[in-house]
Amino acid sequence: MIVDASHIEKLDSRVRAALINSLPSVKPALLLGTQSSNEQSNLCVINSCFHIGANPALLGFVLRPNPDGVERHSLDNILTSQQMTLNAITDNMVSRAHHTSARFPRNVSEFDACGFSEFYREGFNAPFVSESPLKIALQLAEHQLLAINGTHLIIGAVDYLEFTDTAWREDGSLDLATMGIVGCVGLDSYHGIREGRQFAYAKADRPPATL
Amino acid sequence: MIVDASHIEKLDSRVRAALINSLPSVKPALLLGTQSSNEQSNLCVINSCFHIGANPALLGFVLRPNPDGVERHSLDNILTSQQMTLNAITDNMVSRAHHTSARFPRNVSEFDACGFSEFYREGFNAPFVSESPLKIALQLAEHQLLAINGTHLIIGAVDYLEFTDTAWREDGSLDLATMGIVGCVGLDSYHGIREGRQFAYAKADRPPATL
Repeated sequence: MIVDASHIEKLDSRVRAALINSLPSVKPALLLGTQSSNEQSNLCVINSCFHIGANPALLGFVLRPNPDGVERHSLDNILTSQQMTLNAITDNMVSRAHHTSARFPRNVSEFDACGFSEFYREGFNAPFVSESPLKIALQLAEHQLLAINGTHLIIGAVDYLEFTDTAWREDGSLDLATMGIVGCVGLDSYHGIREGRQFAYAKADRPPATL
Repeated sequence: MIVDASHIEKLDSRVRAALINSLPSVKPALLLGTQSSNEQSNLCVINSCFHIGANPALLGFVLRPNPDGVERHSLDNILTSQQMTLNAITDNMVSRAHHTSARFPRNVSEFDACGFSEFYREGFNAPFVSESPLKIALQLAEHQLLAINGTHLIIGAVDYLEFTDTAWREDGSLDLATMGIVGCVGLDSYHGIREGRQFAYAKADRPPATL
């Protein structure tokens, strides 16, 4: 199937959103935890998070705030508290996690509405999702409005990590499949991942090899 | 396992890179195809690509150029030609795709060195990977140096898509599992995805439901 730019423009807006959100491919499925200045917690599912660098340890993601959407609440909270958490989603969490994308009123915590337990670390003003086997705390490092489409790029410095002990390999990497973590496709599909194949550092003068 | 910021800083640099690259979670595994002004093709594997918006259709990714690395060649080519392709990686392509991360000299095409077939569309100056079931052409829309760590953020407008006919669902989404597309974890692991669960649009006043 070939779909060019003029075809994309002509697609029904929901079909276009479903198609373009299926790009670039499998995406990380995460719950973004934040807290308002009056200690109201908020949780929303995001799938635009990406790695920016390991030293300093930085992650980025995009928020598309609607005036009354959950992403708007999250953005407000991040700009106020300067802190946020990212919590990986497992197969057991998928139904509840997807449900955080519904438009709950600002005074409703998605933790309560969707059935997750929140906990806080002392001195850090964003809630973690207890059920998640991979919890990431981020300190806001940069915020910019992307003029090209009015979305917000958030860059956070990794401040704290918590994950299943046995998933940490000797080389430093995490075995996400062992943790039951899922990936996301498009706006509404969640996929378990199979056991992976890990490859040796690639060198131009030797063939590729698995570890 | 708890790893806080001071612990992260003290980690051996390779261990830190492996750990932080395992964040945020499963990532898209893509081959970035570019062409230099003297028609030398280049291919490198990237896993930092993310969705920015559906209308206009925009994707972003980060390049971390080393003076002599393959990402440097890609960046130079993108800034010159203003065009690039992203090609999803399948299980069959994984060994060859990972091998594109080796440091080949600038005058070597990773298509030849790693065993992929390139093809061009008329009027578009970046090579597609024939073997990929999901090919995306991007026109450079924005380039910025992220001052925070010296990486380059590339934003591209989706100009053209080519994918397996049967993978396009009626709702507009793509069935990536059917196409055999893999996700990436960290710097060197590739994971097949299981059949997914697709959820209905979430509404605050009704429970979550699969489609």
